Amino acid sequence: MPTAVELIQRKRDGGRLSPEEIDWLIAGYTAGTVPDYQMSALLMAIFLRGMEPDELTAWTGAMLHSGQVLDLSSVPLPKVDKHSTGGVGDKVSIPLAPMVAACGVAVPMMSGRGLGHTGGTLDKLESIPGFRTGFDPDGFVGVLRRCGLVLAGQSETLVPADRKLYALRDATGTVESIPLIASSIMSKKLAEDLDGLVLDVKFGSGAFMTTVEDARSLATVMVGIGRAHGVRTVAYLTSMDTPLGREVGNANEIRESIEVLKGDGPPDLVEVVFTLGSEMLLLGGVAPDRETARARLEAAVRSGEALERFACVVEAQGGDPRVVEDLDLLPTTDRRHEVVADRSGFLVACDARLVGIAAMRLGAGRERKEDTVDPGVGITLLAKPGDRVEAGQPLASLSYRHTARLHEALGIIEPAFVIGDQPAATGPLVWDRIGP
Amino acid sequence: MPTAVELIQRKRDGGRLSPEEIDWLIAGYTAGTVPDYQMSALLMAIFLRGMEPDELTAWTGAMLHSGQVLDLSSVPLPKVDKHSTGGVGDKVSIPLAPMVAACGVAVPMMSGRGLGHTGGTLDKLESIPGFRTGFDPDGFVGVLRRCGLVLAGQSETLVPADRKLYALRDATGTVESIPLIASSIMSKKLAEDLDGLVLDVKFGSGAFMTTVEDARSLATVMVGIGRAHGVRTVAYLTSMDTPLGREVGNANEIRESIEVLKGDGPPDLVEVVFTLGSEMLLLGGVAPDRETARARLEAAVRSGEALERFACVVEAQGGDPRVVEDLDLLPTTDRRHEVVADRSGFLVACDARLVGIAAMRLGAGRERKEDTVDPGVGITLLAKPGDRVEAGQPLASLSYRHTARLHEALGIIEPAFVIGDQPAATGPLVWDRIGP
Repeated sequence: MPTAVELIQRKRDGGRLSPEEIDWLIAGYTAGTVPDYQMSALLMAIFLRGMEPDELTAWTGAMLHSGQVLDLSSVPLPKVDKHSTGGVGDKVSIPLAPMVAACGVAVPMMSGRGLGHTGGTLDKLESIPGFRTGFDPDGFVGVLRRCGLVLAGQSETLVPADRKLYALRDATGTVESIPLIASSIMSKKLAEDLDGLVLDVKFGSGAFMTTVEDARSLATVMVGIGRAHGVRTVAYLTSMDTPLGREVGNANEIRESIEVLKGDGPPDLVEVVFTLGSEMLLLGGVAPDRETARARLEAAVRSGEALERFACVVEAQGGDPRVVEDLDLLPTTDRRHEVVADRSGFLVACDARLVGIAAMRLGAGRERKEDTVDPGVGITLLAKPGDRVEAGQPLASLSYRHTARLHEALGIIEPAFVIGDQPAATGPLVWDRIGP
Repeated sequence: MPTAVELIQRKRDGGRLSPEEIDWLIAGYTAGTVPDYQMSALLMAIFLRGMEPDELTAWTGAMLHSGQVLDLSSVPLPKVDKHSTGGVGDKVSIPLAPMVAACGVAVPMMSGRGLGHTGGTLDKLESIPGFRTGFDPDGFVGVLRRCGLVLAGQSETLVPADRKLYALRDATGTVESIPLIASSIMSKKLAEDLDGLVLDVKFGSGAFMTTVEDARSLATVMVGIGRAHGVRTVAYLTSMDTPLGREVGNANEIRESIEVLKGDGPPDLVEVVFTLGSEMLLLGGVAPDRETARARLEAAVRSGEALERFACVVEAQGGDPRVVEDLDLLPTTDRRHEVVADRSGFLVACDARLVGIAAMRLGAGRERKEDTVDPGVGITLLAKPGDRVEAGQPLASLSYRHTARLHEALGIIEPAFVIGDQPAATGPLVWDRIGP
């Protein structure tokens, strides 16, 4: 085996690392025999030189095997998960998982917390009184067997290399690298013992990737990794210039998720949920074609079975299941402020990034990892791009706790709204599908 | 001030760091507030993205000011040093410094130890019985005032950032970077409080830089740094395909250095010594032109003044000054083995790298930093490229201590010699001069 320095030099000079070399590096880094300062030099070399598909498959596999891997063989259903690269108002997972579970596909979902202008599924779920997201593997499987889905946080025993690498990347300017992002996401998803995986790769002002080209590159790389590891993987490229749905904030997004499960969701959110959900049924092999899959999801909503699955998982994870019938059980604030249109015309933009930052400033998100979130604050969008608006008409309603924070948020959200004389042409929400 | 991560990201993306940002990074790294893992990511970004001349001037200045800087104002002579990037048989400093000192230019020389196939001036000097190279600044100035030269090791108090950075570069695959090499060399030389500096940038099989283009880049960058810091700096590009002179090894090279001081040196070595020496007199302002400078150096040798200066520094640094008259006081071995020509013809190559590695295997050099060197072993070249040789004629004589090491060395040195039917055309030894 070459030394760590020789491997760094080879990658630095644009060369290729073998699977054995990658295994040795990741195992050594996880064990502490390859020090941080060597790994950070290697990460920067990977950032600037890239990795070939076979290297990336090996790198992801080495991360995956740095810890425990789930064994879901006791669940006699196809297992399919969905992962989003994150956006503003992106609560898709929350209505999607129960709908898919209601159609006979188990969803063993592990999610993350919010950071910066995007929210996190765990933070949203924890706005449900009593809801907990930390499980050991037995508890995780128990919820999955009981409800057909589980909505948990990343287990500490899975993919320890990713936690260590992610902290190092964050401290060394090596976060925004497609191979490093792809391997981080995919190692965690592959540790879930899945049959299929749907990736929602978002692009636009409110997404991690701002251009569709970058999103396509990331999606293509992730689909390749998934397939190389024997998991049927499909990615969708979806637009994130405008927040998804009408609600941004933790309890706000749970409310809207429950509306989707009741058949009352806003059209953009519903479109993404049904598109990804249909794909999950196809990957799970429980529907013969896309039309049938969609019809089954619609039936699961109409029949109330999807909502029941959600109530099941809320109860199984310690939350109050009455929340699905009584949204007033969710935390809120009694202080509201409206942003109004300063002229009449057509709303042509509602910038997702600015809305996300405004919500974070209200207290719905984290500026730094150690911040806590306020589950009750948030933003309700009362108009979306394309809508005709009149001067003085409310565009958004902000639920806030502290006046100073409201003023900060207003300074950010006001310029997010752009009103023009004509409705602007908008691209499709679901841009492309990458997969076989 | 941006954070360390923001500065790493900027360099990663090909941007530029300001002098204040560079000062903050180097001071923080020296103090330990910027950790190794951030510096190694930055070093890899610099390796792959480079530094602009103004960044490099600031980087070198920040390293220079990370510790003490010598104050040689008590020495009422121009101060000029010479630095070589290292080669095989490169003992130029040892006869050069006393010759230049004899002509009225003080030479406050700090040198390094050998590593790999190139020897180090300190190791060679320490083959003189009693000779010591470690001095505090007062002791250093004392020898300089007494003899007009001092041949010491790098003081621990000078440029601590370089020691820390060099160790990190060695462990992270970031050694072979022109800006990082140039700033490492120049920060140490600028800490010597010089008026002028001559750089001998070697290229070829036995040098750190194998091509003249790389040597020219490094030389140009170092000359620019020196001038930006107000030190008159000139670089020479000299060939290192063949060992310089006839002796390789520690005591071997001291013997040959004394021969040069007595006017008996081999022509290639003498040419480099006089070329660099003349430039040092010009930079010191003690000779009006190159011809006069060379004539004064020749006079210093003829008169015995140069040899006296060497005896002075040997005595002042604790060595036995009788060594200049009695070469038998130097360590040697009583075991010798000759490599002979396997055919008649013209010697067309004597590969410097292979000769250097062979000498290292005999024990004259270090494979790893912690190895000790054997001062008495070495290689005497009995033929040089261009010479007519007969089958069976000795090409080199190896002084060895252990038979196993001799056999290792023979396996390496034998292919270093190439005999052809015609003398090969060789380029000039001194290839170019870079400076005003």
